[in-house]
Amino acid sequence: MAHKQKIYQRRRENIYDWMAQEGLSMVMIEDAESRRDSSLRWLSGMPADALLFLSVERKSLLVPWDINLAKLYGDADSICAYNEFDRLPVKACVYAAEMFKIPRGSRVEIPSGTSYPRFLRFIETLDNFDIICRESEGIGVVLEQLRAVKDEGEICIYRKAAEITNQIIDLLEKQLRAGKIKTEYNAVQLIEGECRRLGCEGTGFESLAAGPGRSMGIHCFPAYTVSPFGTQGLSILDFGVKYQGYTTDVTLTVAAEPTRAQERMVTLIEKAYKLALGMVHEGTLATDIAFMVDAFFAKSGMVMPHGLGHGIGLDAHEGPYLRSRGDNRWLLRPGMVVTVEPGLYDPRLGGCRLENDVLVTDQGAEELTASRIIRL
Amino acid sequence: MAHKQKIYQRRRENIYDWMAQEGLSMVMIEDAESRRDSSLRWLSGMPADALLFLSVERKSLLVPWDINLAKLYGDADSICAYNEFDRLPVKACVYAAEMFKIPRGSRVEIPSGTSYPRFLRFIETLDNFDIICRESEGIGVVLEQLRAVKDEGEICIYRKAAEITNQIIDLLEKQLRAGKIKTEYNAVQLIEGECRRLGCEGTGFESLAAGPGRSMGIHCFPAYTVSPFGTQGLSILDFGVKYQGYTTDVTLTVAAEPTRAQERMVTLIEKAYKLALGMVHEGTLATDIAFMVDAFFAKSGMVMPHGLGHGIGLDAHEGPYLRSRGDNRWLLRPGMVVTVEPGLYDPRLGGCRLENDVLVTDQGAEELTASRIIRL
Repeated sequence: MAHKQKIYQRRRENIYDWMAQEGLSMVMIEDAESRRDSSLRWLSGMPADALLFLSVERKSLLVPWDINLAKLYGDADSICAYNEFDRLPVKACVYAAEMFKIPRGSRVEIPSGTSYPRFLRFIETLDNFDIICRESEGIGVVLEQLRAVKDEGEICIYRKAAEITNQIIDLLEKQLRAGKIKTEYNAVQLIEGECRRLGCEGTGFESLAAGPGRSMGIHCFPAYTVSPFGTQGLSILDFGVKYQGYTTDVTLTVAAEPTRAQERMVTLIEKAYKLALGMVHEGTLATDIAFMVDAFFAKSGMVMPHGLGHGIGLDAHEGPYLRSRGDNRWLLRPGMVVTVEPGLYDPRLGGCRLENDVLVTDQGAEELTASRIIRL
Repeated sequence: MAHKQKIYQRRRENIYDWMAQEGLSMVMIEDAESRRDSSLRWLSGMPADALLFLSVERKSLLVPWDINLAKLYGDADSICAYNEFDRLPVKACVYAAEMFKIPRGSRVEIPSGTSYPRFLRFIETLDNFDIICRESEGIGVVLEQLRAVKDEGEICIYRKAAEITNQIIDLLEKQLRAGKIKTEYNAVQLIEGECRRLGCEGTGFESLAAGPGRSMGIHCFPAYTVSPFGTQGLSILDFGVKYQGYTTDVTLTVAAEPTRAQERMVTLIEKAYKLALGMVHEGTLATDIAFMVDAFFAKSGMVMPHGLGHGIGLDAHEGPYLRSRGDNRWLLRPGMVVTVEPGLYDPRLGGCRLENDVLVTDQGAEELTASRIIRL
């Protein structure tokens, strides 16, 4: 625990330095049911449901919904129950500013996701301060950039998380070939049980299992049912395990006695995956890889309806983003862990997606997970 | 399906009427990963990940992330893929305004949760319109109020969802007494399997199972593990099943050979539960019930660290809220479905919570679910 505390403290030190540069006296981080922000956990160890205030005087205050949980997990200089402030962020912010003795007129940054109506309440109530809420160059972006590049400890966690993921993939394949996985639920049940048995917190997001009748959806709905899985056609299984907070994210497709048209789709996906993987290099503009894969599919008259990949970490989706959108300026850097996940979906044929987690190194891409197309 | 479409259309008609009264030409609803809004599903049947635009000329446009899924579930006058707008809400909003021929200078309401930085982009880009983003009296509040009172079809769904929930509770008790549930994971596994077998979409939220070593957390972290469950002390199990979109939400506590102090806590919870239930009446101010329970606990020197209950529906937490906070003005009305869930937590003794789902009728409270303290 002492070791972990040091990690959180070091991360906060980085933020204090940045705050001093920016002339910010205080920043607020919020993780709430209506808007999750894993930066809370990244900076304090507290897994969820709290506010965190940082003062440029290098002090931190954690305001948790559950004080017992905070005593177990939360690292901060002070802890004060959210109930003291009627669970109202503005009230807690007033208290933090007083406790930290923030001078009048100082700049105080609140989360970029703060809604416009709530922003108005902040500026009305904290009218002695210069309340800032911004996307570009704000605390949210700084945290996103810092979190996108994993440190040694985080990479170590990822190697272990990937090892567990790969064990589960192997077991899934074995059970599929043995005819023991008959339904979507069977597949998910295996994942949920194994990941916990192997020491994970759980899954990183709701597992998605879609048999041939439902795989045409990018993210099938409902997430999984008792429908057949792995029967003739294309079945998709998308899951991740959460190990010490960090989630993997893989997708495998089961192609059972595929028709010629289905086999053509599967082959395209495998080629697109290799193409993308070969382009993962330090310094590459992430969007270029996504555009290249879009162009590859376009040659066959196909369109991928989602992004090519994304960073993973404490969130299942975080920076950098590998998507072909004009506003995407992410550069790949060593230490980033990203998914590569080309997918194609057809209302008649079903869908096919192959997704693995990749560590960007100064040597190129290192595949951490070993998901694949399973042909039956 | 035709029947369901009529329901969505009727709900939209209500909104059109309100828009005309308010002088609004267009409203936007958004469900996205970063901010969920089940009103999307309530108004269009589309379960997730889409924008919905409504024009006062009584037309609707659905902009889904997954066009295949929208064709299966989405009901709207027009559907247009989100990819056409680079998955940018502002771009889609410009298109919708053009498609609906919204006159310049008209009032256009965007979601109350729109962040301040994004709000600025809306007013910059749609500078021909009067962009409105508000909490009180806005579209969000109107939808919350409408959704809080369930119609006959929704109550019918709830009776079925409760029946399934009760079957699962009975099975849990049976298996616990037979010694077949040994770990937190065993309990959750039973729920996940049974709810799907009985025709549910899944669970309404991540099930929380906390054995005696972890039940002191309001919402234990991680949600469930392979730790012992139902052994000496207090174990908490909090879950809900999602049936046709609507979730139940119940908590049972297993009190196994409780110490005198633990038994005292359990008895207090049972009394508080009955007290609260007896106060559920049409026209009652929800906050009054919560204050009464707070006062009841205070007499024993105890503090409940969370709200007494909340509405349930397409969301696991929605209006009305039964909490003792000054800003809570919800009145109970027939057709509301709420949880009643007193809870106490102690770092040494563990936690105890009892939660059931209750339909408000003109005769008082009707308990839909039959969760209870299970004494072993």
